Amino acid sequence: MARILSGKEVVQAMAPGLKERVQGCVEAGAQPTLAILRVGENPSDLSYERTACKRAEALGVGIRSIVLPANVTNDQLLDAIAQVNADESIHGCLMFRPLPAGLDEAAACAALDARKDIDGISPASLARVFTGAGYGFPPATAQACMHVLDHYGVQLHGARVVVVGRSLVIGKPVAMMLLARNATVTMCHSRTEDLAARCREADVVICATGRAKAFGAECFAPGQTIIDVGINFDEARNLCGDVDFDAAEPIVGAITPVPGGIGTVTTSTTMEHVIHSCESALGIA
Amino acid sequence: MARILSGKEVVQAMAPGLKERVQGCVEAGAQPTLAILRVGENPSDLSYERTACKRAEALGVGIRSIVLPANVTNDQLLDAIAQVNADESIHGCLMFRPLPAGLDEAAACAALDARKDIDGISPASLARVFTGAGYGFPPATAQACMHVLDHYGVQLHGARVVVVGRSLVIGKPVAMMLLARNATVTMCHSRTEDLAARCREADVVICATGRAKAFGAECFAPGQTIIDVGINFDEARNLCGDVDFDAAEPIVGAITPVPGGIGTVTTSTTMEHVIHSCESALGIA
Repeated sequence: MARILSGKEVVQAMAPGLKERVQGCVEAGAQPTLAILRVGENPSDLSYERTACKRAEALGVGIRSIVLPANVTNDQLLDAIAQVNADESIHGCLMFRPLPAGLDEAAACAALDARKDIDGISPASLARVFTGAGYGFPPATAQACMHVLDHYGVQLHGARVVVVGRSLVIGKPVAMMLLARNATVTMCHSRTEDLAARCREADVVICATGRAKAFGAECFAPGQTIIDVGINFDEARNLCGDVDFDAAEPIVGAITPVPGGIGTVTTSTTMEHVIHSCESALGIA
Repeated sequence: MARILSGKEVVQAMAPGLKERVQGCVEAGAQPTLAILRVGENPSDLSYERTACKRAEALGVGIRSIVLPANVTNDQLLDAIAQVNADESIHGCLMFRPLPAGLDEAAACAALDARKDIDGISPASLARVFTGAGYGFPPATAQACMHVLDHYGVQLHGARVVVVGRSLVIGKPVAMMLLARNATVTMCHSRTEDLAARCREADVVICATGRAKAFGAECFAPGQTIIDVGINFDEARNLCGDVDFDAAEPIVGAITPVPGGIGTVTTSTTMEHVIHSCESALGIA
């Protein structure tokens, strides 16, 4: 029986400190405010937006919804981003991706002011994750993994960590963050040979492939900590992770559930970044 | 008896193509030209400068030497970099580091135009290495490792590669370049537990710690390819690598010597970047 690393517990532990920091911002003259920039009416974007709004409300973070039609032009999108950059009452911007086909996502990401890029999508933010220098936030999901590992006291210094998946949203940035914490990090992916063996060798496995229940019993060993970043649907159309939870849970030492794991913490992490950005703008960070 | 991966052989293989490209630039109206920006009279900088000048001359690349006194101010250094950026007849700039104490090295690196940053020291260049997007060259030493691996036909796709050392000059960028080639990459460092075992598990080991002969027989296994990035001096004041060559060579399948390995190829790689930058400026890349 593995220890279940509940995201809700982490969120509850983060909340009092975040509320206090919001209060500090308000007293210093500004309410931390998140702009949510959505293009079109993608159901998963709408679902995430509802979750974000609820969490923002609970913490006292303001929300500014910016909705553009799915047939918006690149210029109109860049105009909207320029307005976000210029608006001093907005401290962070969450832009849902992928953008509808035809829009230049790279240009949109690069256009966002790194100080307001609370989800680590701009080149400057990613350069910060890679080099440790400059200014910028890591992607919220990568930071959420670190929060869960830290909350549950998982040792990273000297630990062997396998990260499966090399996206810029999660795999590569979380690998850099783990490396900065002195873990020995192995980056695996779809071309890795004998992936199951690589996973079994690790103290901590970060599963971030986006393939439903792709990690079965053969991937796990006793005592491991498993962080499941996936948010997928299985054949029965139930929400599930990258890990076959029922197969892994009897083997490993600790595991995050889906739902109720990393995704839950990601929203709080987004708010944390907005609050930090507001504190920086106020000079009280 | 390991196969010796001679840097000289790689340099000789690169030379005809590079000379032809220089000729192409000249015919299109510009001689590829490298500015060497040196602050003070550090003997190792002077030694590298002589090597670079010789290689440039052999390939037909122009050299512009910019020498500033060791007591230069930050403003004077930034002025010199601004002049390099503005000078259309300069296509690349090699700035020796570390800079003398008291100078703001991060600011100097960030000031260099990414198009002329042929050694991957600016945040934009490093962001390119991390994200694969944007414009910029990787650090020449990291690219030299890839050239040696490719020249000798070392399989990277699906291979297990251990990179020891996590600097921005070599460890982190070469890890990203290997990942882009579909290797399974483990990033090790001074805090890695049982480093020798991690090294023995790999198909390819990149040794980049800067500690003379730190990798002994216990780190190696038959059939491995060893890339030794170190340039150090041993107790007898002889040039040596990070690897104890005499201990490793009887065990492994292939190994780069020091001197005569990666360092030799780095200079040619620097010239290749200058030529590429000139081709880009001419619109013939």
